[in-house]
Amino acid sequence: MGRIPFDRLQDTITAAFTRAGMSEDKARACATIHAESSRDGVYSHGLNRVPRFVEYLEKGWVKADAEPTLVRSMGAIEVYDGQRGPGILNALTATDRALEVAAEHGLAVIALRNTTHWMRGGAYGWRAAEQGKILLAWTNTESCMPAWGASNTRLGNNPLVMAVPREEGPVVLDMAMSQYSYGKLQVTRLNGAQLPYPGGFDNEGILTTDPGAIEASRRILSTGFWKGSGLTILLDILAAALSEGAATHDIDKIDEGSCTGCSQIFIAFDPERLGSAEHLQQVVDGMAEYVNGSTPAEAGRRVTYPGQNTMRTRQDHLKNGVIVDDDIWNEVLALADRA
Amino acid sequence: MGRIPFDRLQDTITAAFTRAGMSEDKARACATIHAESSRDGVYSHGLNRVPRFVEYLEKGWVKADAEPTLVRSMGAIEVYDGQRGPGILNALTATDRALEVAAEHGLAVIALRNTTHWMRGGAYGWRAAEQGKILLAWTNTESCMPAWGASNTRLGNNPLVMAVPREEGPVVLDMAMSQYSYGKLQVTRLNGAQLPYPGGFDNEGILTTDPGAIEASRRILSTGFWKGSGLTILLDILAAALSEGAATHDIDKIDEGSCTGCSQIFIAFDPERLGSAEHLQQVVDGMAEYVNGSTPAEAGRRVTYPGQNTMRTRQDHLKNGVIVDDDIWNEVLALADRA
Repeated sequence: MGRIPFDRLQDTITAAFTRAGMSEDKARACATIHAESSRDGVYSHGLNRVPRFVEYLEKGWVKADAEPTLVRSMGAIEVYDGQRGPGILNALTATDRALEVAAEHGLAVIALRNTTHWMRGGAYGWRAAEQGKILLAWTNTESCMPAWGASNTRLGNNPLVMAVPREEGPVVLDMAMSQYSYGKLQVTRLNGAQLPYPGGFDNEGILTTDPGAIEASRRILSTGFWKGSGLTILLDILAAALSEGAATHDIDKIDEGSCTGCSQIFIAFDPERLGSAEHLQQVVDGMAEYVNGSTPAEAGRRVTYPGQNTMRTRQDHLKNGVIVDDDIWNEVLALADRA
Repeated sequence: MGRIPFDRLQDTITAAFTRAGMSEDKARACATIHAESSRDGVYSHGLNRVPRFVEYLEKGWVKADAEPTLVRSMGAIEVYDGQRGPGILNALTATDRALEVAAEHGLAVIALRNTTHWMRGGAYGWRAAEQGKILLAWTNTESCMPAWGASNTRLGNNPLVMAVPREEGPVVLDMAMSQYSYGKLQVTRLNGAQLPYPGGFDNEGILTTDPGAIEASRRILSTGFWKGSGLTILLDILAAALSEGAATHDIDKIDEGSCTGCSQIFIAFDPERLGSAEHLQQVVDGMAEYVNGSTPAEAGRRVTYPGQNTMRTRQDHLKNGVIVDDDIWNEVLALADRA
């Protein structure tokens, strides 16, 4: 593990993306989200994801130049077709449009179909909350886990993002509907460790903390057993229905990489426009005090709200450099330096 | 356990509520939701909850005659004050208003503050979906579980409802953010059984399936460990912020029964008005086929989507009578028969 200054990380990823055929502006916008993900400690969708995104661009699975088109509009609701353009750019467009529409109507629902992987969903929540807005957003995905009571994968992990502003730093939830990601299973297995809590069933149908056994069975656990299974089904249907786009069972037929062709929803509220900004701050401050004031289950451990620890990681990385995996950093340097 | 015809159940609960001071119309509207909950197999908030509701009416914690007042309105958003009236009536008003506003604007957000327990949240999802609408609704509650990493209860279980229409019967998710309810712990303990999966921590901080040990520690588990803890915090903040109402830390100060003073959100979409009703049916039918076609983990077991099993229970109860607990049935008969 090394430490790289944020600006250098951002510039290097930008160069990797321009070498793969993106315009300078678009490359920088995408690279910023990747660099900020690593900066915030979400390594899986930061620098680590750059080589795969370059691969998708080169295979034509993500269209470097495609831009979203408005399909229909009705008051506070707009539907866009992402045209399989870069998922980050489409999601940024949808988020920014949601904030604009919410500034006018108090709320906005932007539905986006036929887009590609948005990388770190939390990025859009942080963006909205840092501008004083509330965001509720989710995406559907290809299948990666079984429905409750099934042994084969037919549900997506459909990450859900909820973000509200707070002066000391926003409250941002960014959760996939699987208990653990396959990335977490792999890292845990490579470290020779067990998961802290059961993460799936083995091939005999026994609940296990052994990451390798779950990778082998593909029976990764939905968050909260049957509950996450139900929640992910509803998130999928709503995303596909409101965007008039693809649901998981359609995305599974596309086979052009993770999330290609997926559907996303961005719901924004503007507390200023709604006249409730002051009340919101009281609510959030009260929650923070209440949660932070909990009795820790283990002495010395801090009880936090979603997003609270992110601010510490961010400050450390901005001061001391962003932590990178050396092998991946060298791989991205090579992608940035090629002719 | 006995079986009581649905109409008799409904009439008896209506009488219990009129005896407690409600008007005939309001008593019948509330009784219908209780009776339908038992009819659908949600016993905890059906007949079983009637004595406690009567107690709340008699203590004045729920105001029998209070009606919601409009606080503010802005396009597709409306905020109501529930005036501590019966939670079922307030939630029905909010749901019906959400469907009306959605019929005009395509979508609606109704925020309701200062209301009381809505009983079975799924009731409002079924109501919307049976009229061809999409509903996303949630409530906050008093605290009943610890934040992740804490040992004392500071989070509500904040049930979330998501419902979409389907011709064969709607898809309806109705989930609290705790892995199990205290009611489920009690029933399991009284049966001398263990929970099927860990439901909390004991007083030593060890994850356990022993319901009595969790009742003693009050360290009930949030759905999906840290994930449900985060999700419930965000649902709480959004409910309180958008309704300009109370969050869990405020509700905890009220101390007039479960959920008194809580905040609720009802988001409706009208697929007909949005022009996406046909696409929605394709999406839902495709999901149903995909999920139902999963390979069962145990031979002979059916893999279902949320709400699918409810239709079977409902049909059985309408044909053969609604299953009731004999002691509770006799208690409600006495409440209905008193002077």
